[in-house]
Amino acid sequence: MDYQNFFASELNKLREEGNYRVFADLERERGNFPKAANFVEDAVRKVSIWCSNDYLGMGQHPKVLEAMHDALDKVGAGAGGTRNISGTTHHHVLLERELADLHDKEAALLFTSGYVSNWAALGTLASRIPNCLVISDSLNHASMIEGIRHSKAERKLWKHNDLAHLEELLAEQPLDRPKLVAFESVYSMDGDIAPIKEICDLAEKYNAMTYLDEVHAVGMYGPRGGGVAEREGLMDRVTVIEGTLGKAFGVMGGYITATKELVDFVRSFASGFIFTTALPPTVAAGACAAIKHLKHSSAERESQQAKVAQVRERLDAAGIPHIENPSHIIPVMVGDPVKCKWISDVLMDRYGIYIQPINYPTVPKGTERLRITPSPVHSQEDIDTLIGALEELWAQCELARMPMAAQ
Amino acid sequence: MDYQNFFASELNKLREEGNYRVFADLERERGNFPKAANFVEDAVRKVSIWCSNDYLGMGQHPKVLEAMHDALDKVGAGAGGTRNISGTTHHHVLLERELADLHDKEAALLFTSGYVSNWAALGTLASRIPNCLVISDSLNHASMIEGIRHSKAERKLWKHNDLAHLEELLAEQPLDRPKLVAFESVYSMDGDIAPIKEICDLAEKYNAMTYLDEVHAVGMYGPRGGGVAEREGLMDRVTVIEGTLGKAFGVMGGYITATKELVDFVRSFASGFIFTTALPPTVAAGACAAIKHLKHSSAERESQQAKVAQVRERLDAAGIPHIENPSHIIPVMVGDPVKCKWISDVLMDRYGIYIQPINYPTVPKGTERLRITPSPVHSQEDIDTLIGALEELWAQCELARMPMAAQ
Repeated sequence: MDYQNFFASELNKLREEGNYRVFADLERERGNFPKAANFVEDAVRKVSIWCSNDYLGMGQHPKVLEAMHDALDKVGAGAGGTRNISGTTHHHVLLERELADLHDKEAALLFTSGYVSNWAALGTLASRIPNCLVISDSLNHASMIEGIRHSKAERKLWKHNDLAHLEELLAEQPLDRPKLVAFESVYSMDGDIAPIKEICDLAEKYNAMTYLDEVHAVGMYGPRGGGVAEREGLMDRVTVIEGTLGKAFGVMGGYITATKELVDFVRSFASGFIFTTALPPTVAAGACAAIKHLKHSSAERESQQAKVAQVRERLDAAGIPHIENPSHIIPVMVGDPVKCKWISDVLMDRYGIYIQPINYPTVPKGTERLRITPSPVHSQEDIDTLIGALEELWAQCELARMPMAAQ
Repeated sequence: MDYQNFFASELNKLREEGNYRVFADLERERGNFPKAANFVEDAVRKVSIWCSNDYLGMGQHPKVLEAMHDALDKVGAGAGGTRNISGTTHHHVLLERELADLHDKEAALLFTSGYVSNWAALGTLASRIPNCLVISDSLNHASMIEGIRHSKAERKLWKHNDLAHLEELLAEQPLDRPKLVAFESVYSMDGDIAPIKEICDLAEKYNAMTYLDEVHAVGMYGPRGGGVAEREGLMDRVTVIEGTLGKAFGVMGGYITATKELVDFVRSFASGFIFTTALPPTVAAGACAAIKHLKHSSAERESQQAKVAQVRERLDAAGIPHIENPSHIIPVMVGDPVKCKWISDVLMDRYGIYIQPINYPTVPKGTERLRITPSPVHSQEDIDTLIGALEELWAQCELARMPMAAQ
């Protein structure tokens, strides 16, 4: 086999399909986000970022940065080891306490990323609980899918947010068979929200555990930023709440919260937790500061919701079609990878607006989109520029009449 | 099923076996590492860390900390997205160039950890290259094993560092079948080093790719810290060199380096790369500073080697048995999880020396050990205290006459 030829030809296939990804090379201006420099070959241009998951701008919050500077000064850069071998720092311990408190659970466990937390926690629970059946929402994130697959446990896909189908799958199992219902609160690409209460009702009726991914909700929903389950008073009914420190909390890392025993079980058996260097203490310190702040301050959440509502209204007024949903995510559908990339390129080149095209495998082929995430740091002028640019482009391209655009 | 009882009873089994892990809660003193505070319930005591993988003390190097402070001031805390969706910052781009240069390869790709780099790169290569056979050293790290397992490709275990067995496995395959030989340079727990040249000879003879994990070698071996393959002039013969930013480079993260096409292929298809928030730019900046420094400075490497040699000599003089090996890792064998933990506890309680007991599943049952990692930051006094403490303990416990101790 000629390995190089194989790689080159697979990459060419991606290019032909329009699914080859080009990363935008960015440098934010701290204090001035969503503004950033964009490096293109030897040139640098100014852009506004409209697709970040730093949903509340906490990545530049003075309290977060101060906590990170302090930790660097006090303890240095990295953790220097796995959690077991010299890598548990006091910053990790404090952050885990903060997270357990955030979700009103007995314990929390940090991972190097949200991806790893899903992969490792689901993989460990489903593989180590004898004869466990995983019932997984059909739109679950890649990290959940990989974790379940990794476990080699039996898995049944449950039609996205379809309670009748979930009950059917639960009811056909013996009551005493271990079952784990895995789902998300806010689904990242469509922005819809799961019926958490009804799912918990079914799980309790059929003696199943529930595993809820709140990565696109923590910090943003609930009076203290505990997520949709907090907002709806349901945190105590969910077995495992999983979240991230890399989106609304502005830094990096993932976690689970649950009972002491469950968390200790995952801590003790998860390969992806055990055999990896711990998060740098400075990252833990920054995340801790963000969580503490958002437990007490609702200003960021309120401002985000107001900006989201305003962008939606302006899109509607301009006749630009987007998926209606109850979250902060605004998906403007294009439905073709090449067109999606073209619009994104024009937005960047002509208007200095950065919205990455979302293509396969992040979304199914044929549902390519621009995913807009308004945040408290977007100014009135930013919004005017965005809507103006989209209006011009839509007028020009007659995108409104594209089949997918009406979804 | 009663889930809570199940978790509690599995944890009790670990406790009964002596394999239940208790993490030491530490806070380093920046500028004074290996000294750290150790939190025990409500008390705090001073300890010296002797088991860190911050092998060269770069986690507190002024250049690393300055780069991290600067990046925080300039661009803020987190990356705010996946590499594809607004998370590629200029710090990532510069770091990938630095890494490609370090290993004299065309390209490099960052991951959130060394664990994820192995899991994602091996998983992607082995699953996407049709009919790929992976020949994996039997002592490979958990992250490599999980990546290969994840790929569902056929795998054959090759007896640790056994060239005859490797050739046997290669020779029995058709020459044109895709094959990937996966191994490490420095094996973390025994400290032995692979015969890289001979492995490359065999791989070339039988048209196999090679995948070399240098996580316990980068920064520490070779004139520019490129690892054992650099030291031996073999970097161009290895297909993929994988490394970490979390050990000798003092921060966090993992990477692969290889040809442009191979790296682009993994970038385009690896779930664990695509669907995860990028490293914080400040982490990338710190790692970049550490790599640049160690490309030009050999003082840390030389000092480490001198300290390692000195500790070995003093252990020999004191009659404390340890595994001979050509690396910087000194495994003192105990061979029993309960005794290993007991010695570690006494070292901490009585002497303020922190060496985590290494028990199953990090090492096979029956090979429990104390793994000592001398570094440039250990002073003469630290070494005297360590040797004195071990001498007293060994005299007291007659550990020298334990069966495993003689290995």
